[in-house]
Amino acid sequence: MAFDYSPLLSAAAPPPAVRWSGFPRYNFVGGHNDSGAVPVDDFIEASRRVLAREGHNLATYGLASGPQGYRPLREFLASSLERRCGMRQTADEVLVVSGSLQALDLVNDVLLEPGDMVIVEEATYQGTLQRYDRLGVRYIGVPVDEDGIRMEALSGTLDRLKSVGIRPKFIYTVPTVQNPTGSVMPEDRRLELLRLAYAHGVAIFEDDCYAELTFDGTRPRSIRALDDRGQVIYCGSFSKTIAPALRLGYLVADWDILSRLIAAKRDAGTGALEQMVLADYCVSHFDDHVSRLRGVLKEKCDAISDALAAEFGTAAEVSVPKGGIFIWVTLPESVDTMKLFQAAMADGVAINPGAEWCADPSTGRNKLRLCFGHPSVADIRAGVARLADICHREFGLPERSRNVGRGE
Amino acid sequence: MAFDYSPLLSAAAPPPAVRWSGFPRYNFVGGHNDSGAVPVDDFIEASRRVLAREGHNLATYGLASGPQGYRPLREFLASSLERRCGMRQTADEVLVVSGSLQALDLVNDVLLEPGDMVIVEEATYQGTLQRYDRLGVRYIGVPVDEDGIRMEALSGTLDRLKSVGIRPKFIYTVPTVQNPTGSVMPEDRRLELLRLAYAHGVAIFEDDCYAELTFDGTRPRSIRALDDRGQVIYCGSFSKTIAPALRLGYLVADWDILSRLIAAKRDAGTGALEQMVLADYCVSHFDDHVSRLRGVLKEKCDAISDALAAEFGTAAEVSVPKGGIFIWVTLPESVDTMKLFQAAMADGVAINPGAEWCADPSTGRNKLRLCFGHPSVADIRAGVARLADICHREFGLPERSRNVGRGE
Repeated sequence: MAFDYSPLLSAAAPPPAVRWSGFPRYNFVGGHNDSGAVPVDDFIEASRRVLAREGHNLATYGLASGPQGYRPLREFLASSLERRCGMRQTADEVLVVSGSLQALDLVNDVLLEPGDMVIVEEATYQGTLQRYDRLGVRYIGVPVDEDGIRMEALSGTLDRLKSVGIRPKFIYTVPTVQNPTGSVMPEDRRLELLRLAYAHGVAIFEDDCYAELTFDGTRPRSIRALDDRGQVIYCGSFSKTIAPALRLGYLVADWDILSRLIAAKRDAGTGALEQMVLADYCVSHFDDHVSRLRGVLKEKCDAISDALAAEFGTAAEVSVPKGGIFIWVTLPESVDTMKLFQAAMADGVAINPGAEWCADPSTGRNKLRLCFGHPSVADIRAGVARLADICHREFGLPERSRNVGRGE
Repeated sequence: MAFDYSPLLSAAAPPPAVRWSGFPRYNFVGGHNDSGAVPVDDFIEASRRVLAREGHNLATYGLASGPQGYRPLREFLASSLERRCGMRQTADEVLVVSGSLQALDLVNDVLLEPGDMVIVEEATYQGTLQRYDRLGVRYIGVPVDEDGIRMEALSGTLDRLKSVGIRPKFIYTVPTVQNPTGSVMPEDRRLELLRLAYAHGVAIFEDDCYAELTFDGTRPRSIRALDDRGQVIYCGSFSKTIAPALRLGYLVADWDILSRLIAAKRDAGTGALEQMVLADYCVSHFDDHVSRLRGVLKEKCDAISDALAAEFGTAAEVSVPKGGIFIWVTLPESVDTMKLFQAAMADGVAINPGAEWCADPSTGRNKLRLCFGHPSVADIRAGVARLADICHREFGLPERSRNVGRGE
């Protein structure tokens, strides 16, 4: 007789996971990266070097670096972030975390309680929205354009909230290679964003996980770099630049709030072997690696843009991303991408339906996100072709593919 | 002008962390391990082998193994646990987690809400109690003896709770090398524990993190191995057997509840490099390594037992542990170990005051936990001598050390 756990479950217990059955044939979801780009030989060499030098420190929690993470990794980050996006900090203002998802959790733990309000980009990262939903935190999405958050809309939203006595806790933004639109916010908007945050006493949570992946290789100064009041909590990750299965991200913030985030991190540290290997690797290889990776991803981005144009023609409106690993596609109003997602999944094509990536799901009803980092160029072409077939079968669109009309 | 975060903080935000200033000179706290026992050369070889073979899989979240963790590591665990403590499971019933602390968090997430009741051992792991306190979960400590939880006391507690309409969610127990007393629960008690759990419809959360470290090398069958109803959620860790800075633990449970625990793990996976290296290492080296480690720890355990006897004499009553890395010491009633902790810390000696390791802090007022895994034998001797000096200075005890009276 099996024990029945159901009377013991917390009201907040999630529904059961389904058994994992492998990746779909054409996998356009998840932040997976290019397999060939993983620097395996350099990792082997870094592992050898760093373990020989400091492997015995694995016997202590936190190595010999305390709860903020392996100090050489924090030092690399402090100098790399200064060089690449103008942020000045010491290693003492960096907290290494177990992926940017933990960064989200820590910030939420410290700042949010049920009923609180957060401002997000209208289309934004699903994992962030899911967390607010679970916490009972409300959010308002502000419209974005090809330069990110529209400032007059943000200003209007902040004024409206103020007029009803609501002070949002923070503005969550992905300013550089926005998820999912792939936009990069210009510096004048970043300054305007700061001005509004200062005026309304609202913090900014800058999620910069994709910032190294701009196809032209440049990075604007981060919002945190432009901020002289410590009002920005900054988060980054190695998932997209190195490898997602390494669970390594980081938070940068002034000590006043960083000290709370450190206290909220109750996991006895982030995996030390990964930190050690990555620190050793990054010091000598990071810039060259990311430079190569940008080329690989640009090629795949071109492939998926071309495939979408060929297969969907005018039926697909594409936001051409300025970098990163995903592309945001708008289909005609008659296409419900949640239904497309289900039909495609059954046929071995995984996509992200837009409703799950929008603060107001109805605005994403006919949109979808496609990740192109992992599939090969051949799979990108074949997968988009199959998606067009499925879409035509389910919705009668696109009517033409590869300049040929599809019969009904 | 620095931004003031205080109006934005959640009511549950923790107090700020203090800046880390290194380990104390004599460090008898934390589950640190013997530095010399870290198998550095074998780790280098395992890293080389596994990265060369599967390094490219780091480009996908979860490698090619899905959300439960690297499959070869789960397979090693499934077979090792069967061989070592009689538990039969497949890799599909194992969830790799980021240290046993995450195991605690996942179980709490799925089963507990504020006001719920949990049963614990009277003296138990501080991290567990802290979590319940933070969640607003109540707990009752059941007295333990040299064989673990006393069953007639547990039975009485369950009856009493039932009579007032309270059904505890689970019994949290560390049956093998109990933390902090170092006891090992015999099989007849395990069976009685199960019988009581069945009778009262209460789950058991078996925390077996230290079970491989019994000094005689044997392991009793786990409570989960004796359970035929799936009423036991089992947790283990590599922190104590291999290295704590690797953040790797595991949960084993029937799918009914494991599927909820998997769903509650929202971190996109546990660090994959650590899982890969560990799996490769463990298949060929785990048993030999743990066997060597037991010898190292037994030597340190003897050293600290001898040092306590020499320095504290009859003033210290020691529960001689059957394994593990810590020893539980009872001092005379006049010694408040919270004050001793503060005085010792100021003098470079870190100890765990007993009040923090007891469900009812008053029962631990004159007790302390000393971890002996990390310090060298020489430091164990010198540190215990210094602790005796401090204790004598603060409380006038011990009156004799090394068979010599201490002047007032």
